[in-house]
Amino acid sequence: MASFNHAEEHVDPDMIVLQANLDDMNPEHSSYVMDRLFEAGANDVYWIPIIMKKGRPGMMLNVLVSETKLGQMEAIIFRETTTLGIRYQKCTVHRLGRVMEQVETIWGSVTVKAGIYEGEVVQFAPEFADCERIARQAGVPLKQVYEEVRRKYAEQQGAQ
Amino acid sequence: MASFNHAEEHVDPDMIVLQANLDDMNPEHSSYVMDRLFEAGANDVYWIPIIMKKGRPGMMLNVLVSETKLGQMEAIIFRETTTLGIRYQKCTVHRLGRVMEQVETIWGSVTVKAGIYEGEVVQFAPEFADCERIARQAGVPLKQVYEEVRRKYAEQQGAQ
Amino acid sequence: MASFNHAEEHVDPDMIVLQANLDDMNPEHSSYVMDRLFEAGANDVYWIPIIMKKGRPGMMLNVLVSETKLGQMEAIIFRETTTLGIRYQKCTVHRLGRVMEQVETIWGSVTVKAGIYEGEVVQFAPEFADCERIARQAGVPLKQVYEEVRRKYAEQQGAQ
Amino acid sequence: MASFNHAEEHVDPDMIVLQANLDDMNPEHSSYVMDRLFEAGANDVYWIPIIMKKGRPGMMLNVLVSETKLGQMEAIIFRETTTLGIRYQKCTVHRLGRVMEQVETIWGSVTVKAGIYEGEVVQFAPEFADCERIARQAGVPLKQVYEEVRRKYAEQQGAQ
Amino acid sequence: MASFNHAEEHVDPDMIVLQANLDDMNPEHSSYVMDRLFEAGANDVYWIPIIMKKGRPGMMLNVLVSETKLGQMEAIIFRETTTLGIRYQKCTVHRLGRVMEQVETIWGSVTVKAGIYEGEVVQFAPEFADCERIARQAGVPLKQVYEEVRRKYAEQQGAQ
Amino acid sequence: MASFNHAEEHVDPDMIVLQANLDDMNPEHSSYVMDRLFEAGANDVYWIPIIMKKGRPGMMLNVLVSETKLGQMEAIIFRETTTLGIRYQKCTVHRLGRVMEQVETIWGSVTVKAGIYEGEVVQFAPEFADCERIARQAGVPLKQVYEEVRRKYAEQQGAQ
Repeated sequence: MASFNHAEEHVDPDMIVLQANLDDMNPEHSSYVMDRLFEAGANDVYWIPIIMKKGRPGMMLNVLVSETKLGQMEAIIFRETTTLGIRYQKCTVHRLGRVMEQVETIWGSVTVKAGIYEGEVVQFAPEFADCERIARQAGVPLKQVYEEVRRKYAEQQGAQ
Repeated sequence: MASFNHAEEHVDPDMIVLQANLDDMNPEHSSYVMDRLFEAGANDVYWIPIIMKKGRPGMMLNVLVSETKLGQMEAIIFRETTTLGIRYQKCTVHRLGRVMEQVETIWGSVTVKAGIYEGEVVQFAPEFADCERIARQAGVPLKQVYEEVRRKYAEQQGAQ
Repeated sequence: MASFNHAEEHVDPDMIVLQANLDDMNPEHSSYVMDRLFEAGANDVYWIPIIMKKGRPGMMLNVLVSETKLGQMEAIIFRETTTLGIRYQKCTVHRLGRVMEQVETIWGSVTVKAGIYEGEVVQFAPEFADCERIARQAGVPLKQVYEEVRRKYAEQQGAQ
Repeated sequence: MASFNHAEEHVDPDMIVLQANLDDMNPEHSSYVMDRLFEAGANDVYWIPIIMKKGRPGMMLNVLVSETKLGQMEAIIFRETTTLGIRYQKCTVHRLGRVMEQVETIWGSVTVKAGIYEGEVVQFAPEFADCERIARQAGVPLKQVYEEVRRKYAEQQGAQ
Repeated sequence: MASFNHAEEHVDPDMIVLQANLDDMNPEHSSYVMDRLFEAGANDVYWIPIIMKKGRPGMMLNVLVSETKLGQMEAIIFRETTTLGIRYQKCTVHRLGRVMEQVETIWGSVTVKAGIYEGEVVQFAPEFADCERIARQAGVPLKQVYEEVRRKYAEQQGAQ
Repeated sequence: MASFNHAEEHVDPDMIVLQANLDDMNPEHSSYVMDRLFEAGANDVYWIPIIMKKGRPGMMLNVLVSETKLGQMEAIIFRETTTLGIRYQKCTVHRLGRVMEQVETIWGSVTVKAGIYEGEVVQFAPEFADCERIARQAGVPLKQVYEEVRRKYAEQQGAQ
């Protein structure tokens, strides 16, 4: 039987999205900025390609984070990027319950993360790092590993 | 004379934008998700290409909808996509008045949708489906059909 | 009657496309690079947003130019961008015949550029700079200026 | 047992890619242009977002087609878009062998297209239209239909 | 010694972001719309490439502006674009203090704009127009001009 | 004095670009595919966001590689992605000479890679990994590390 390490489904009304438009930052620095923001507690960080003043190709940095961490995020963005301003807006996040489950395959055990919506599993995804490791060790295409893990997980669910 | 089927210009303060970042969904499913959301009452649905964690190319799903339909939209997004979370923010939408008018062309009648801002026509656009049908039936380039419809509409307006 | 300043439709088999992927250039410099390339004889210059090694957002510079100008283009790209390599491929360009014609509007004269395919006008477009000047001077929306110029041009064509 | 409707793996050295940069076409027309090109025999049609002269957001039309259909493709592009020039380059296409197979599910039969590389199935994908129909009729999420079809196909393969 | 023309770091809670999705506007008009919005007091204007209904490539216009200028921005967007609706949300902007300083180079004086975060210089950038002029007049790569200006600015800071 | 580990500037006419359009691959797999291609000898790998049939958001995989490695690249692409076809074209690559040089900073030694065009240094860039390590260890913004390394390198060059 599966052992659960789960978080309950909930709605969090105290999140913010920070945004900064960058048209003069070395794009090579973007992964570092992202890493720093995640390490400091960002829930999500992503980039949107945009077209800025005078038709310049730019990147918009987006950070989703709890309102309580606003100051820490701003400090990183102002120090590590080239922006002169940050804008932010409140937002609400509805998060599914999350359950981590082990699936046994011919190549060993893989963690699957499932998403629970109103008590029902609506998503599940094998952990990328587990599948990547197996694909390399077993010399099997990554997509085949995913396929097999998903198949085993579905079987396991059906058997409960 | 034109017959009107119009909606008045208005400001709607009770709209929301829902967003979900997807980095593990089969992109082939995106049109289906979009269709389902429109059928369930979304005012607009659109995708923004983004760059996510570990530099993965992802897609951000955006849904503009009345606040009263929040739950229905969430149910579709959680069931049909692979996201574990949805974020949303309130927004206000200012919509132009809309007037549908018939324009007679040498290929038959075409509907034109006009947008009214403070009592004045500021936009007008031939219906795509009408123009596409004519272009195919008459063997004329689509852009020529558009051009002709726009010209006739302008004439008709001038004559009133 | 219209006065013609035209070039004949032709196929040019001696063109090349140069490409360079940039992930560490200040995007602010991109318009300058583009200007320099056009001044030195590029037929077209455009940027494609790409995702590079380690998921970095980058820009691919593209230059379409006659093979005879390869060296001049390379000198500008190597000096003005941060790339360590340029790749290029031969290509053929099929260009429409081009005719410049004057169209009279209530706001003055506007140049229209038409494209001729096998003896027939298949495209025409008002010159952007003329329309922009009129829109500013007459206080009319730019799209209305375009619409009017296109209408007049079509009339003028019909009357010939 | 499966019945095969297959094409052999092969390398086709007589293909071309046509490209046209568009900065003044109504984007609404893009699906029509795409449809027309596919109907006339294009093997693939796709759009790349680009940044053009003066920083204008543009779209690059790409058509992959047999060299023998160059003229037909050009006629459609020159008539249906706003471009004044088309560029093209030769290219080689390596295509997998393709096998269509029927998979039985609890919701009925679904076609799966498999790709054969050096005699081995390396890809397989349920037909989108079949899955979409089932998802609507059975009221099941589309991704669940895909999952089930893929699972059944894998079982069927294993049993041979 | 440097002479200061500075603005203090501050947080402005009365900003709004206006957005309009455009799938039927001539992209050639986008720079004009941008210019008009900046002239009328927009703090920032940028475009995001999106995918709209029926898979159409579209552009999302974004305008960041003080809430007091909402009406003026809407008038320009409704008159100059093809949209039938504008949505907007409140947002807060945190702006760095700004200091303009002159830097002497072998090619003449260049303005550098520095950003001040909690009393400390965290960004600085040479003015693009100054550097572009020098690059052209002196026949030096633009990136070399930037490099030299940044080097001199850093020296100047160190010497204070 | 600097010690050189350099490669000469050269033109390589035997390169190819492979491309595959993907509209049904889990985007999460893209970094793995990229890693595998680099490990097998690709000179460059990058992704271009595209819009495919039925308006689906897709990704175009691009691989720049020596013609001699065509088969190895194809094997990886066919096994690890979902494509049914790969297209390729020959291209020529002009590569700058490359010189690695050590630069001493207050935080330790950093490698700088310089690009040599017709005997002259036209580019130089600090190694990302070195700068990232220093930024983390010294608690200094990454951009400040870059700035300092570039300044020291320029000084060192001037002194020779």
